[in-house]
Formats: sequence, structure tokens, C-alpha cells
Amino acid sequence: MSVSAAQVRDLRDKTGAGIMDCKKALAETNGDVDKAVDFLREKGLASAKKKAGRIAADGLVSSYIHAGGKVGVLVEVNCETDFVAKTDDFSDLVSDIGLHIAAMNPQYVRREEVPADVIESESNIFRNQALESGKPEQVIDKIIQGKIEKFYKENCLLEQPFVKDSDTNIEKLLTEAIAKMGENITVRRFSRYKVGEGIEKKSEDFAAEVAAMQG
Amino acid sequence: MSVSAAQVRDLRDKTGAGIMDCKKALAETNGDVDKAVDFLREKGLASAKKKAGRIAADGLVSSYIHAGGKVGVLVEVNCETDFVAKTDDFSDLVSDIGLHIAAMNPQYVRREEVPADVIESESNIFRNQALESGKPEQVIDKIIQGKIEKFYKENCLLEQPFVKDSDTNIEKLLTEAIAKMGENITVRRFSRYKVGEGIEKKSEDFAAEVAAMQG
Repeated sequence: MSVSAAQVRDLRDKTGAGIMDCKKALAETNGDVDKAVDFLREKGLASAKKKAGRIAADGLVSSYIHAGGKVGVLVEVNCETDFVAKTDDFSDLVSDIGLHIAAMNPQYVRREEVPADVIESESNIFRNQALESGKPEQVIDKIIQGKIEKFYKENCLLEQPFVKDSDTNIEKLLTEAIAKMGENITVRRFSRYKVGEGIEKKSEDFAAEVAAMQG
Repeated sequence: MSVSAAQVRDLRDKTGAGIMDCKKALAETNGDVDKAVDFLREKGLASAKKKAGRIAADGLVSSYIHAGGKVGVLVEVNCETDFVAKTDDFSDLVSDIGLHIAAMNPQYVRREEVPADVIESESNIFRNQALESGKPEQVIDKIIQGKIEKFYKENCLLEQPFVKDSDTNIEKLLTEAIAKMGENITVRRFSRYKVGEGIEKKSEDFAAEVAAMQG
């Protein structure tokens, strides 16, 4: 049977799945929208995107302390209910993300959080590099775009390859968790401290200090 | 024997102790500045203030997770050497500060970190309160000053009464630790996350959500 545009729109609204997936689901279920919803859920193609729009205000705050207290991470991961927050699956996910942050040192959760002036200054560096290496003007924008994408992948938690499995990334890990646990799950914020980072040890003061101690 | 002003100044420069303490120490040691330094060190009166100027770039990052992961704290406390960082005394101090932050929810480490516009907006609130309650103009500045001091005590970690012993505060705790451990010790930064704080749960969406699930 043929599938109407109205049916596809209806199914998309209900599931958030892609147009082609909706068409296929409706073809499989002879245009029965309710059955098509189940079909998409079973395939794991519905829910995740639909759920990703829901408000997640419960969850866990978790920490990961590394190297005897020289690096520490605090992370908040949200889900929708305390019921899910209390499951081992959720707790394991949050632990993995904390470990990942400790190891991979992301600067932002998502690319939307990178300040515009950071991107501008990175772009300028890449532009100058490209100009100096004699690249023709017309390819420079493309080069910069590629370098900025690389910058996002290296600095944004959600886009980083997962430290325990580089075939996936944190965003995919979350999407899988959403499909599995049936709630929207988001990484809201994190802090990563490394002892003494950015504090300048004035080594030239050492002689003076010794002198002062003996003085 | 009499103690000269130059000797007192010298001793103060070396130890950071108070003028009266320096005078007393010099009187006790017949004006021998080196012996007076030892005297003050033994009394624990030297060092703390002097050491408080030294660069602390080692230390520990520690976490405190409360209420099954609903509140979490990450804190960096610096000392000067890994030797001190590895002692039980230092580790206990850092744990206590983490626990304190979880319980007392400070907003800043020290009063110098409170942004000027926060103080201005607090001052305006206090001013309007005082004016409305009919306080005479000439006492209002004094009232505001008192309220701002109270604001610092409530919101700045170093000035908060210690949660495990309200007779002391965090700054005093650090000064005692400096005297005891013989290194400068500073709280550099902390993060405190409470799950879901500031995220609005749209409860009015619940009916629509149920309808959508059944639709």
C-alpha cells in the first residue's frame, strides 16, 4: 500500500525518527501508525531523538580522582527520574564519563559552548599557517573549516572518541544509553582540576628563599 | 636590655609575626634576632603569616559526594611540596574542606572574588530595606556595611564558620594547618554541583506528555 505524507508527518512527530525510517516503518506495518511506532522503537530508531528533547533534571553528580589526588573530575549527568539515576547502568555510564574527562581533558561539553572569540582566534592561526605555507586563497576557507572541526573533536566532550573504545564517542554513548534506559540523558557540566596547573613556581626565588632562611 | 626598632623591624620581616610578639621574643632572647626567630617558631607565631606569601603549587584535588550522588564537591587545596600533600594531616584537612563546602554551599573562596556588581546589587537591596523601615539616612551606610560583612561571612568559604566546629572558621583552620605542617596552604578553587539545580521541570507538560504517549 502507499504511504501518505500525513502519516509520515504524524509518525515523525511521535517518534522523531528520520523520514526514510518512517516511510519504511509505515510500509512494514501497512500504514498503521501505532504499529509503526512500535516498529521504530524495536529498531531503536524512535525514542532517542524524541527523548532527547525532554527535560532531564534528575541524575547523579559523580567524581573521579586520579593519580593519588593530582587530577580530579566532577561531573553532573542528568536523566529524568531518580529511578533511572539509581540503576547500575546509569551509575556506570556516569563513572565512565568521569574517567574519560580525567583522561581526555575536554574543555567544553558541546561545540555550542565554545566562545566565538576562541573560534575566531583559532581560525586566524589556521589562516596564517595556511597563507605562510603558500596555499591558494580559494582553498583556505575549506582548510580552516576542517581544522575547526578537528578542534571541536579534540576539545568538546560529546565529540571526543571514548577513551575506553575509540570506535565510539561520548555522544553516541549517550544516545545508546537513552535508547537502553528509556529516558533523556544529558551531560550538563563538569570540572576538571589538575593540581597546580597555571600556578607559576618561581624557581628563581629559590636561592633568595634559602638565603632568607639562613639570614 | 632594650630592644631597638630596627631589630623589631628585622624580626617582623623574617617572621611576619606581630610587633608585640616580636618585642617579647627579642626581650626573651636578649636581642638575638636569630634566636628570636626560633622562639617565635616554637610558639607558632612566626611562620604562618610569612609562609602564607609563598607559592603553593602542589597539593591535592579531592571530592566529596553526598546523598547518593545528589550533591558533589571538587576542591583543590595547595601546599608547597608533594611530601606534605601525601601526609594524613593534609589529606584530612582537604576532606574536611570538601565536606564543609557540600554542607555550607559557599559561593566564593574569598571576599576578593565576589564581583563588584554583586556587592552593588546587595547594597541596593539593603539600602532600600533600611529606607523603607524608616531608618535615618546617617546610619544607613553603617547598616549596609554590617550587612555586607554578613554577606561575606555567609558566602565566602574562608570566612564561613567551620561546619564541624562553629567556634572556628576555614581561614583559621588553614592558619593552624600552616603552623602545624610548616608550608603555605591555600584553597585555590572548588566546584559544587547539586543535581538538577536551576533546571526547570515543566510539570505542566506532564498531561501533554501522557497524552502523547497514549496518542
